[in-house]
Amino acid sequence: MSGFESKLSLYTGMINDKLEKIINIPDAPERIVYEAMRYSLLAGGKRIRPVLTAAVAEMLGGSLDDAVTAGCAVELIHTYSLIHDDLPCMDNDDLRRGKPTCHKAFPENIALLAGDGLLNMAFELLSAPGSFKTIDCGGSLALIRCLASASGVRGMIGGQVIDLESENKQDVTLDNLTGMHGKKTGALIEAAAVMGCIVSGFTDENCHEILQIRRFSANLGLAFQIKDDILDVTGDEGSLGKPVGSDEAGGKNTYVTMLGIGGADARLREKTDAAVAALNFFGDRACFLRELADALLRREN
Amino acid sequence: MSGFESKLSLYTGMINDKLEKIINIPDAPERIVYEAMRYSLLAGGKRIRPVLTAAVAEMLGGSLDDAVTAGCAVELIHTYSLIHDDLPCMDNDDLRRGKPTCHKAFPENIALLAGDGLLNMAFELLSAPGSFKTIDCGGSLALIRCLASASGVRGMIGGQVIDLESENKQDVTLDNLTGMHGKKTGALIEAAAVMGCIVSGFTDENCHEILQIRRFSANLGLAFQIKDDILDVTGDEGSLGKPVGSDEAGGKNTYVTMLGIGGADARLREKTDAAVAALNFFGDRACFLRELADALLRREN
Repeated sequence: MSGFESKLSLYTGMINDKLEKIINIPDAPERIVYEAMRYSLLAGGKRIRPVLTAAVAEMLGGSLDDAVTAGCAVELIHTYSLIHDDLPCMDNDDLRRGKPTCHKAFPENIALLAGDGLLNMAFELLSAPGSFKTIDCGGSLALIRCLASASGVRGMIGGQVIDLESENKQDVTLDNLTGMHGKKTGALIEAAAVMGCIVSGFTDENCHEILQIRRFSANLGLAFQIKDDILDVTGDEGSLGKPVGSDEAGGKNTYVTMLGIGGADARLREKTDAAVAALNFFGDRACFLRELADALLRREN
Repeated sequence: MSGFESKLSLYTGMINDKLEKIINIPDAPERIVYEAMRYSLLAGGKRIRPVLTAAVAEMLGGSLDDAVTAGCAVELIHTYSLIHDDLPCMDNDDLRRGKPTCHKAFPENIALLAGDGLLNMAFELLSAPGSFKTIDCGGSLALIRCLASASGVRGMIGGQVIDLESENKQDVTLDNLTGMHGKKTGALIEAAAVMGCIVSGFTDENCHEILQIRRFSANLGLAFQIKDDILDVTGDEGSLGKPVGSDEAGGKNTYVTMLGIGGADARLREKTDAAVAALNFFGDRACFLRELADALLRREN
């Protein structure tokens, strides 16, 4: 295992351990909603968002434990958004990462409430006494503010609505697509990275650390989405855990439908380069984040 | 107008003004979700929860403006819960307060996301810089903690699940029913009142002020629910804004099906008395809250 791989596996191990402990199923009539929350939260996934929080914090000298906790709050938000996105009135998906979606494994109303429960739990986690060892109340509040503004209607939810509203529209431009993804997936990826700064004591939104990490993660988020669009065409169904070509079948606007595979690939490299360039500010300390950007560029699922 | 009525109308006026300003509709493709959020938020309602926050804070010498802001966060949560409760996979209701429900006035996926947006916005509001004039970061964090734990799976959402799981069950006891309502509607009413204490500088959960306000509001919340159950049988369709007898038609367990009208009425008075008794601690300062409990007992909708 390379140094990068062992670090990545350390982070994901800590994140999965923490997520495992966040939801304890009570012996009570409402246990089914806890089961549904756990089902989706522990259904796998790359944990990119909390890995970013952990890696940024470790680079900046913050507490790794506290960063994992903050990153898990982002993962709770991410998981709720997947559950609600999969519901019949949204994308109506039956499979997610090769497993039945939450509303297929549980009744639809329980899946809806499990999503609500996870969204709410992100803020319970960030505000609970004892969640953090090295962060004072100003830091906790900054974390909550950062996450809440990224996940709300001015961020992720707004992006989801733009996506719904642009379905089957013919006049969607590349700028529209980029703007939509910047909110729908970018805002939360950015928040995860910035929360790594906050955990490390950088709370001024205009400090160099936050500005450069925002530039890095905004570009990384776009690169991540472009790669998703490319894999939907060129990927392998087995490693993706979902059918190839689903975007085209669904009439979706993607970087591939707009730019072709070659153009999308060029754009992917351009955004990854821009992300890596923003790391220059941090010098050698950023080597894990550089390798992470490269690994996301080369991923097969 | 009595002193009580003019005070109530001052509070609700301030609350409605603040709610009106919270959601500004942008000139952007995602405007529809803002419209749906505003539609439900401004569709009327008694504003009991923020009135409690305001009245408790004014009684304890806290800032009324800050209490109204905190109370509006509770109203955002309450409104999201109504939107999600009305969805086809939940109660599938077409009307709420005599108007089309959110998913009837807007597409179902927009209603789902409007609910998510309101839930999220409650935490945006409580964490935004400049939301409060008299509260420090410790106070803001205490407000967030209080609201998040009341609205999550250990509170309101858990209560909604217990309610779903008990539908058409024959062996539901009065204790089960009381436990369910304590979470489903009680937790948020209690949080609203306790947030009035926090706004006034009482943040220790074991201080007398919070303990007595919890006792008051827990009993008031139950009284409120019992009255709802009674009005569903004895009320007037015009003033209720919904069909009378819907609980019985839906096969729901209520205080009336379990205790009869007379028994439910006795229980309503008992709970109101217990609520008022908890106010003795505050002496004459609690006269508005006493009259509020009495007004809720006598209400016709």
